[in-house]
Amino acid sequence: MSDCIFCKIIAGEIPSAELIRTDKVVSFLDINPVNPGHALVVPTRHVASLLDLKQDELHQAVFVAKRVAGAIREATGSPAFNILQNDGEAAGQVVGHVHFHVVPRSPDDGFELGWRQLAYAEGELESMRHAIRRGL
Amino acid sequence: MSDCIFCKIIAGEIPSAELIRTDKVVSFLDINPVNPGHALVVPTRHVASLLDLKQDELHQAVFVAKRVAGAIREATGSPAFNILQNDGEAAGQVVGHVHFHVVPRSPDDGFELGWRQLAYAEGELESMRHAIRRGL
Repeated sequence: MSDCIFCKIIAGEIPSAELIRTDKVVSFLDINPVNPGHALVVPTRHVASLLDLKQDELHQAVFVAKRVAGAIREATGSPAFNILQNDGEAAGQVVGHVHFHVVPRSPDDGFELGWRQLAYAEGELESMRHAIRRGL
Repeated sequence: MSDCIFCKIIAGEIPSAELIRTDKVVSFLDINPVNPGHALVVPTRHVASLLDLKQDELHQAVFVAKRVAGAIREATGSPAFNILQNDGEAAGQVVGHVHFHVVPRSPDDGFELGWRQLAYAEGELESMRHAIRRGL
């Protein structure tokens, strides 16, 4: 898509610190990383949502994310990483072209995922289960 | 592994709100969800890190995560979702058995991923790129 920054990076119209490229996906460094070494994995085809990825795109994306995660761990010495995909604006997706974040993590990196744990009221877990299973 | 809560759930020794099960992975609802409908996708084999997953386990995990994400979106009416895998304690992994979170998201859900954007000093992006590429 002509106004998509990731499409421009993929086409080489905007320079990037590219790490690896396969048939269907590219990985490059995020220039504003959560931690140094933070990489993105994106399909070369412009698709906004993970739900619209084809099977081979999805497979190559996770294959590359795994490989890149291992290499980042080695290069940075970080013992851990997060893989994160934000799908939709309400999930924090800023660029409307599917991307997986691979973020190296260390115990002292000062980055906190703002996790929370809610609870289901009696019966709600089971009715949620049934509602989701209807769509599967 | 005998003391792993996910292994016990997979084996049916601990009840769970199971959504779907394939050859290599199972998905069930997180009982302390970030948002109602929050599901986990886990390989049936006890593996701590994504880096140790076999290709078919990884493929089934993302295939199921995608399918479950679509069904959760339908069931909850949420327009967005996060897929998150925390690999290692420093990344927030609490149960030492690989799992992907699928978290439905809405604009008004009050959940914030504590994102941050750092910057590279001159030359650091390129040297990071070379360091990671050596491991690829």
